[in-house]
Amino acid sequence: MDWHIRFSDEKDCLVLLDQRVLPTREEWFECTDTTSTIYALQTMVVRGAPAIGVTAAYGCYLAAREAAGEGWEARLETLLADLAAARPTAVNLRWAVNRMQEARAARPELDYDGLCAFWLSLAKEIHEEDKRLCRQIGVHGATVLEDGDTVMTHCNAGALATADYGTALGVIRGAVDAGKKIDVIANETRPFLQGARLTAYELQVDGIPVRVACDNACSLLMKKGMVDRVVVGADRIAANGDAANKIGTSGVALLAKHYGVPFYVAAPLSTIDRDTADGDAIPIENRPAREVTHVGETQITPDGVEVFNFAFDVTPAELIAGIVTEVGVLRPPYTNAIAQAFEKKAQEENAEK
Amino acid sequence: MDWHIRFSDEKDCLVLLDQRVLPTREEWFECTDTTSTIYALQTMVVRGAPAIGVTAAYGCYLAAREAAGEGWEARLETLLADLAAARPTAVNLRWAVNRMQEARAARPELDYDGLCAFWLSLAKEIHEEDKRLCRQIGVHGATVLEDGDTVMTHCNAGALATADYGTALGVIRGAVDAGKKIDVIANETRPFLQGARLTAYELQVDGIPVRVACDNACSLLMKKGMVDRVVVGADRIAANGDAANKIGTSGVALLAKHYGVPFYVAAPLSTIDRDTADGDAIPIENRPAREVTHVGETQITPDGVEVFNFAFDVTPAELIAGIVTEVGVLRPPYTNAIAQAFEKKAQEENAEK
Repeated sequence: MDWHIRFSDEKDCLVLLDQRVLPTREEWFECTDTTSTIYALQTMVVRGAPAIGVTAAYGCYLAAREAAGEGWEARLETLLADLAAARPTAVNLRWAVNRMQEARAARPELDYDGLCAFWLSLAKEIHEEDKRLCRQIGVHGATVLEDGDTVMTHCNAGALATADYGTALGVIRGAVDAGKKIDVIANETRPFLQGARLTAYELQVDGIPVRVACDNACSLLMKKGMVDRVVVGADRIAANGDAANKIGTSGVALLAKHYGVPFYVAAPLSTIDRDTADGDAIPIENRPAREVTHVGETQITPDGVEVFNFAFDVTPAELIAGIVTEVGVLRPPYTNAIAQAFEKKAQEENAEK
Repeated sequence: MDWHIRFSDEKDCLVLLDQRVLPTREEWFECTDTTSTIYALQTMVVRGAPAIGVTAAYGCYLAAREAAGEGWEARLETLLADLAAARPTAVNLRWAVNRMQEARAARPELDYDGLCAFWLSLAKEIHEEDKRLCRQIGVHGATVLEDGDTVMTHCNAGALATADYGTALGVIRGAVDAGKKIDVIANETRPFLQGARLTAYELQVDGIPVRVACDNACSLLMKKGMVDRVVVGADRIAANGDAANKIGTSGVALLAKHYGVPFYVAAPLSTIDRDTADGDAIPIENRPAREVTHVGETQITPDGVEVFNFAFDVTPAELIAGIVTEVGVLRPPYTNAIAQAFEKKAQEENAEK
């Protein structure tokens, strides 16, 4: 399902499937400028590190268009800085903005109209590229799953978190496409319920068997031997392999270790931030209390009681059996494996040129 | 707060604060016969092992009254069997029904009216006794918490789960009553949200500082050093110390072990089932899917997707630093400690006679 993020040339805006109201309603949200793009990112109309990257690439184009007129360059810088700061944890946001800026720097001859046209086409390229990367993650990831596996996943690292196909769910789709029978346990993933709402939705659409469990059921399900593998996505991976992902992931990884269940992370190399030495250096986003205090319109905590809403936690590299990327499955020690993966990617890109 | 379970002599029925609609509404539910008592137990108008025991004791009286007329004894047996089977995991339900039956067996002279009067007074005695037990748990439990501790608890083992004061929250209240400064992190406890709805509610009523965290935040909060102790209740404790409690508890215990946080269980001896050798022998209740698929009226999973709703899991004895009971804090090895605790209790009861 690659139709949840699309650029409308007719309306000249980015059109997003509003993930806040899935799975019971399919509504569309239009990003027409920087403010609406930042709003979509912050309120999680769109979420998932790779999808955030694609959205941000289009967001750069929308910012350029918005900056039109005398003195546009200074205005553009301000808008891009705001965009890049919309969410702190997912490195793909910064990665996409940087990539757009670097591409612009390499084309100094472009005037304002030229830049707008160039950036729109580059955003579309990044969008298509993400689809290809997820398919490649799927091809490599298929090798880590066995026919008949029940795979637990946390949050949504699926088509909805990317341009298409997904990272963690890309691994699962890759195995299914390779003829393996896989069924999935989706942790519901409080507070935003990405597992219950989004992972269940998109796997059901694809006809891949999926059951939903409260996050609390993880220990019992593993104890019962009902989980063969865990595969999750990531929002940022440090240079040593520590992986930030949705709150609760590190707990799943620790339980997986205790019960002897292999735990995998799936992500494109753009999610690996080699400027971040280890997990302790990854900023953890604090999100609005209302995501915890209410589900829909139902209030679940008493008025006046404080809540925590840390959006991510960090899974230490030593709990990760493998990191599935577009260039292959990285294995510990990750510092070396990551450096080699980037080299391999650079070689592949040079070979293409 | 001991007003949530009360017997109305005027209406001749059991009146329960309806825990399904807390914390936003205070509504009352009347148990007038066996059907309404079983409904209250099964839908969790009232829940928590000791509160289930107290409710079941009154339920025996209501069953006796309902059985009135020719052939009442056979009808009563059927009603009591139904009542005892209302929920499978909490041993206090069976314990209360057995205790009522044993007391009746010791008073063969009683006619029908005599039995009704005797059982009502015995139910009221069990009700008062539970209040005393919780206070004793609080006195012993105060010794396991230190001044300044932040205590995580899972589910609600508070006043609302007992006649008053609570077991796990009894430990916390005991420490507060002993002059210690304690603040509490209540895990929200999906799917029924006893932590967010009930623990937060009753601690707020008592002015004990409480913050609510999604169950997923446990690993991060412990990693940040924000949790000094964990104290939870239990629905059934096996003869070896394995403790069944709300789904997710065993995961909290495993994370607590990993992060070096002492983990305690608090329960009256009536929760210890010496006929159950270990945790594997404890039946785990499977509850209705709707508790997972909906929060209030908000649907969170797609139509047609299967969900898990195991209500409990078992924490192995080796993860438990101590079991706080009305006769003291039991320490490993639990098989001995439990046998000694029952001896001590029997001696105390004999001394009282």
